[in-house]
Amino acid sequence: MDNRTQITVKKPPEDVFEAFADPSQIGKFWFSSSSERWTPGGVVTLRYDEYGAEGAIRILEMVPAERIVFQWGSDGDGRVVTVRLVPIDSQITLVDITEGGFQPDHVHELLDNKEGWTYMLTCLKAYLELGVTTLRASLVHG
Amino acid sequence: MDNRTQITVKKPPEDVFEAFADPSQIGKFWFSSSSERWTPGGVVTLRYDEYGAEGAIRILEMVPAERIVFQWGSDGDGRVVTVRLVPIDSQITLVDITEGGFQPDHVHELLDNKEGWTYMLTCLKAYLELGVTTLRASLVHG
Repeated sequence: MDNRTQITVKKPPEDVFEAFADPSQIGKFWFSSSSERWTPGGVVTLRYDEYGAEGAIRILEMVPAERIVFQWGSDGDGRVVTVRLVPIDSQITLVDITEGGFQPDHVHELLDNKEGWTYMLTCLKAYLELGVTTLRASLVHG
Repeated sequence: MDNRTQITVKKPPEDVFEAFADPSQIGKFWFSSSSERWTPGGVVTLRYDEYGAEGAIRILEMVPAERIVFQWGSDGDGRVVTVRLVPIDSQITLVDITEGGFQPDHVHELLDNKEGWTYMLTCLKAYLELGVTTLRASLVHG
């Protein structure tokens, strides 16, 4: 099954797209760093310094201001994430994230995934609308 | 099963407690309004103007700066929510929310619940740490 999470951000789709693609921005709302700009076919290393973690993603599609598709991992068998950017009007974007391939009975995996996307999208909204960069990396898994 | 969500907020537990209890604050990060101050045994009407919705909660416990326990609805059979405030140091609080009574196979209900708590806690953090009050009421259920 898919896990889908959506939020509205008061910025145009171009700005939301750049927040993901531009490695100087990701550390303001999500991972600590991207190793490079997200481009189609690229493999990007994402670091999470606060958790001493890193992992790779493979970029499958980048359609400016419209869509980002990537796969977790670099070996081609990770789950696929689709970020769709839908203009509500010229200054508001619906950011619609779907991650596919969950087993419905893996409830804890689904809940962790939902928590992560909801948190990231709220931090993204705060960053793009208000320049707030200090909300990330404070969820606690107990 | 329980649904548990936790975040750290750079404010003392007293401030986090007041954000829930004081009806002038809830509209900054969660519902639009509380009908009255949260006190033990009280029944509070929570409104969500953006969604044209309202509902009641029954307050079961209010232990200042430590714990809030309430039940959704006023008829005594709603799920119970426990908010625990754990001081990490004098200026940081772990806000630990558990809602009990889910069926594990009700995956969508659990995911909606996880989404709601994660979003509220992130908005609460932004409100208490930075005075940001404009993040709430922007999730979209599609």
